[in-house]
Amino acid sequence: MSQQAEIGVTGLAVMGRNLARNFARHGHVVAIHNRTFAKTQALLDEAGDEGTFLASESLEDFVASLAKPRKVIIMVKAGPGTDAVIDELVPLLEEGDIVVDAGNAHFPDTIRRENALAEHGLHFVGSGVSGGEEGALNGPSIMPGGSRTSYESLGPLLEDISAKVDGVPCCTYIGPDGAGHFVKMVHNGIEYADMQLIAEAYDLIHRGTGKSPAEIAEIFTEWNKGELESFLIEITATVLAQTDATTGQALVDVVLDQAEQKGTGRWTVQNALDLGVPITGIAEATFARALSGSVPQREAARGVLPAGTVEWHRPTSADDADAFVEDVRRALYASKVVAYSQGFDQIAAASTEYGWDIDRGAMARIWRGGCIIRARFLNRITEAYERDQHLPLLIADDFFVGVIDECLEAWRRVVSGAALNGIPTPAFSSSLAYYDGVRADHLPAALIQGLRDFFGAHTYRRVDREGTFHVEWSGDRSETAVGGDFKADKSTHTDEKKVDQPIS
Amino acid sequence: MSQQAEIGVTGLAVMGRNLARNFARHGHVVAIHNRTFAKTQALLDEAGDEGTFLASESLEDFVASLAKPRKVIIMVKAGPGTDAVIDELVPLLEEGDIVVDAGNAHFPDTIRRENALAEHGLHFVGSGVSGGEEGALNGPSIMPGGSRTSYESLGPLLEDISAKVDGVPCCTYIGPDGAGHFVKMVHNGIEYADMQLIAEAYDLIHRGTGKSPAEIAEIFTEWNKGELESFLIEITATVLAQTDATTGQALVDVVLDQAEQKGTGRWTVQNALDLGVPITGIAEATFARALSGSVPQREAARGVLPAGTVEWHRPTSADDADAFVEDVRRALYASKVVAYSQGFDQIAAASTEYGWDIDRGAMARIWRGGCIIRARFLNRITEAYERDQHLPLLIADDFFVGVIDECLEAWRRVVSGAALNGIPTPAFSSSLAYYDGVRADHLPAALIQGLRDFFGAHTYRRVDREGTFHVEWSGDRSETAVGGDFKADKSTHTDEKKVDQPIS
Repeated sequence: MSQQAEIGVTGLAVMGRNLARNFARHGHVVAIHNRTFAKTQALLDEAGDEGTFLASESLEDFVASLAKPRKVIIMVKAGPGTDAVIDELVPLLEEGDIVVDAGNAHFPDTIRRENALAEHGLHFVGSGVSGGEEGALNGPSIMPGGSRTSYESLGPLLEDISAKVDGVPCCTYIGPDGAGHFVKMVHNGIEYADMQLIAEAYDLIHRGTGKSPAEIAEIFTEWNKGELESFLIEITATVLAQTDATTGQALVDVVLDQAEQKGTGRWTVQNALDLGVPITGIAEATFARALSGSVPQREAARGVLPAGTVEWHRPTSADDADAFVEDVRRALYASKVVAYSQGFDQIAAASTEYGWDIDRGAMARIWRGGCIIRARFLNRITEAYERDQHLPLLIADDFFVGVIDECLEAWRRVVSGAALNGIPTPAFSSSLAYYDGVRADHLPAALIQGLRDFFGAHTYRRVDREGTFHVEWSGDRSETAVGGDFKADKSTHTDEKKVDQPIS
Repeated sequence: MSQQAEIGVTGLAVMGRNLARNFARHGHVVAIHNRTFAKTQALLDEAGDEGTFLASESLEDFVASLAKPRKVIIMVKAGPGTDAVIDELVPLLEEGDIVVDAGNAHFPDTIRRENALAEHGLHFVGSGVSGGEEGALNGPSIMPGGSRTSYESLGPLLEDISAKVDGVPCCTYIGPDGAGHFVKMVHNGIEYADMQLIAEAYDLIHRGTGKSPAEIAEIFTEWNKGELESFLIEITATVLAQTDATTGQALVDVVLDQAEQKGTGRWTVQNALDLGVPITGIAEATFARALSGSVPQREAARGVLPAGTVEWHRPTSADDADAFVEDVRRALYASKVVAYSQGFDQIAAASTEYGWDIDRGAMARIWRGGCIIRARFLNRITEAYERDQHLPLLIADDFFVGVIDECLEAWRRVVSGAALNGIPTPAFSSSLAYYDGVRADHLPAALIQGLRDFFGAHTYRRVDREGTFHVEWSGDRSETAVGGDFKADKSTHTDEKKVDQPIS
């Protein structure tokens, strides 16, 4: 048999095609396959000279062209299509071969597939890949899950084509079964929050100072030179600077203000609800998109709901405007730190819940390049987790306490001013409310527990002794101890200690 | 054969027991059954003289004691237990019999069970029952789904034992299969929001004015005489007035401030994400509970995170304090209206999505009595939907526009002051942000669409013509039309019109 490929890619839409070219450009022999050969031929025609491609028309020939243990990357639209390709592949493979799903699969599907393929002695690697088509070609951030064994042979290839920051690859082993796709999901959830915060900052400056999109583009360019430096801040400047050729207006003014919300943002929030982790920044970002697309509601509200704004110290002079812009920058930075802190909290909770043992510092490290949320401050997150691997709350790390201290008063002024002036800042406000909630000595959740005990006999715990208690609200209002001692941790919620079945 | 029962109850924990007693007290012959006979015997011993109970030890005898078509209410803890009872029951029943699940089932389970029982010619009725043990005995709010046919014979019995308001039963036919349990789920979600808003109001007054729980109890008693009149406001006064016998302190000060969040609140938010309906009030309430139970995070934050509060005009005189309390009352009322508006939005979206044809005005009507969220202002909701059955946004109804107009400035002052002063008001703030979002002429979602088109070729729509468009961001930055015309409704999100597969 002639030359064999180190790795193969099936599914040659733009992402698969660019991943294949990336391997070839790095000197790896790549097997390529697509359901219809036209796309394979197009790749050969347009990029065949970039390296060594072994093209096959059939899946059988494609598999035969791979060196053992075979490494096959599936790059098709997430969903039933992935299962269909897997079903076709499995009979052609041998024990020890590695199947990589590099699409945006939902992690429970990845867990299911990993289990199924393990029965055939195959390694299934659910891998997040971020960076869009550009990243796929020039170096994405790669988040592979699956078995550690599979990473030994697969890892070096993936690290080779990944983005590099300070010479360090933006790819590392994440954890068993669904861990890779889970981390990619949270990455996307954070991306939702990041974009919503940027949008709120833009809206505040636009409505607060009357500056044009082009002027605000310059502000973002300036911000991108400082601690906010990141891909999203950079491209915000580009998008805001874009003029629409047809109308001569700023592009952002002719784009319909309805954003789509289904997908990974939604999954992230749904999972956080299952885990009981408050990720309010991501949730508000997801709902803000849903609201933007709530056309009948927005039409019913237009011109009908009063503004009722309250006098606000709006910036009048240029100096005032500069100060306001700086306030918004600080509010953005602080809210962003909270959104990341919440996301890393969710990764930690999932890692415990699903037994993944994820290294959060390493996650921040591989997000520094290649991916959509790449940002300078991710270095600071890595350092925080290097200082304390089990850090329970990212914003309680010394460095981030310092950041928040610097931003906090501005953040409060911005959220307060937005409320008075009728500018919606759901993610800024929600992040601040989370901040004030997590640092509160006492939360009024105690009252909620009292109400729940009143109408549903849900019981409560006390601050001064162990156990669960119930007041005979409809009787003599005496307190009775109903449960034994138990630890105040999440796994033993009072839910399981009720007086009777849950009622409400 | 001797006397036969009109209805039967299996599962005699406190809820089932009280429902059975409620039927008996209304002169209905009730068959009763429990897995262990001890509970059945206890019911007979303690309440046997309240009416006619036909007690059976076996499920066979229980079924045999029922008049045809048999009506069996299952009242067991939601989950596999329900399926187990159904599996035992089915072989004993005949075509046309009616099985009622009155537990807190998740509506997809109810849809599944309805389908399964329909194959046996049986009617399965998933029914929400709200009001706790007290309501079950003296008149709950009942939300039965299932077939219309089943309601013809079952409905009158349920209406008879339900709460009555102005002589109108708090029970009506909701809609096919899962509709009843769905509406109960949203009811509970709204209950989460209601309680969180009350908790925030309490916290604001407590921290803002230094008033004691007992003093604030009096404020809630006063509020309960006005437009906020409701069960939850009433019992808040009772709970706040309660003194702990052991310490002499207010009970609310010795209750641990960690509320449990798993259950129907979580399901409500997860479903809203699936439907794309922004229910931010319920979401923030659910996450606020999760945050209260995030013990390691709260411990890490304590004493470490700076307060950084900004000078705020705190109430100093008694008059000032009264004005502040009135501001909080208005903020509470406006936020509550938003939370209900969001919940009814979700019911409308689900009704369309699952083909339920739910009458939202009727839902508000049957929540006026018996249930936990019973409140005077539900009459106003019913009236709003009577004025316009297809009202797209509850807060855009004339009456509620008036309410908000009256509350709006106070609401803004309260949210603004809370942000400056470091008091977490996630639900107040989030409801206001939603309000300002839904009434906004332009949302910065346009910028988000621009960013998504930049990094993922997700395309955007334009304000001035149909179609979907993409800018060649890495090329000459020209715009290309990529999709044909399509309607701007939720079912045709740009998601399905991508240039290529979703990438980010």
